[in-house]
Formats: sequence, C-alpha cells, structure tokens
Amino acid sequence: MNKYGLHGKLTATEGNAEKLSSILLQASALVSTARGCHLYMVSKDKTDENVVWVTEVWDSKEDHDNSLTVEGVRELISQAIPILNGRPEQGQELEILGGADLK
Amino acid sequence: MNKYGLHGKLTATEGNAEKLSSILLQASALVSTARGCHLYMVSKDKTDENVVWVTEVWDSKEDHDNSLTVEGVRELISQAIPILNGRPEQGQELEILGGADLK
Repeated sequence: MNKYGLHGKLTATEGNAEKLSSILLQASALVSTARGCHLYMVSKDKTDENVVWVTEVWDSKEDHDNSLTVEGVRELISQAIPILNGRPEQGQELEILGGADLK
Repeated sequence: MNKYGLHGKLTATEGNAEKLSSILLQASALVSTARGCHLYMVSKDKTDENVVWVTEVWDSKEDHDNSLTVEGVRELISQAIPILNGRPEQGQELEILGGADLK
C-alpha cells in the first residue's frame, strides 16, 4: 500500500515564524519514533517570511492522526496556536509512490 | 546552512500519469547517489488523477541543478516531455530547516 503524505502550510503572526518553526522542530523530534512515521520536515517559504511548511509521510492517515496524541505534542500545539495567523489551511494530501532516501 | 527544497507539480496527458510516475521513480533511483541528495519523493495527487508531485531536498540549488546532468536523467526527461500536459510549472522552493527522518 502506498504511504500517506501531507504538505501543510502554517502562517505565523508577524515576527513569529522563527518561534513557530522552533515549536514544529520540537514536534518533529517527538513524532520521529511514532508508529508509521517516515518523514516530518519543517521548511521556510522562500516567498513569504511568515509561512512555515510541514511535509509529512506516514504509513497511513491513521498513523498521522495518532501522532497528534503523542506525549508532549498537544502541549506544543497549544504553544503554536496563539502565534498562528488564523486557522491552518487544509494541507495538501498526497499518495506517496516512492522515491530515493525516504525511510 | 539550510538545505534546498523543491515541491514541483507535473501534469500528465490523459491516461499517462502512471507512465510519468514510473519515469520519475526511475529518475529517483538514478539521482539517489548524486552529490547532496537528501530526498527525491514521487507522489500522486489525491484530487487530480493526472497530477504527479516530486518533492526534492538537496544540500544546495546547485546540487539540484547538477542532478539534471546525471547519466540517464536526460534520457528519462526526454521520455517524460511528450506525455506532459504543457510545461511543468515553476516548483515551490523551500528552505529546509530540519525535521525527523530526513537523510
């Protein structure tokens, strides 16, 4: 079965992109050992300094959803929410076919 | 220095998405050992059956550009061009900050 991918955009309130990135990198460390995690990558947008992207690959959507309950993740989410500019948009869902250097 | 990321969309002519994906997966195998390659991932779009996404991470844009000259890659590009619906759009460039399970 192909893997489940999610490419999601988060917009920080003015001046808070670095803090948001830091929170997301902490989250990546927490979920790296969660079941079914193949990638959790945090990027800055080249064209909008307030935008941070998270690109995730999981065995299944269920594994992704379960990652939100990993110890410490809810705490990080609660730190991120006040510095988000509005609600996160629906991420782009992908069906991962394969490729190089994916765990 | 942060890594260079590219999230690019390719649209196949009707009925050719599987062939296009196959060509891109062959390309991923060729570039996996190229200098600076950290990820070359091929995905199907969940909402448009003709769309294939390629998500790449390299040490630098230069390493990405050099990958287009890897032996066999030009041949694969020439196989892909006739089944593309128009020219590929400019990919989304990302500055990779880090994350889990990235090589």
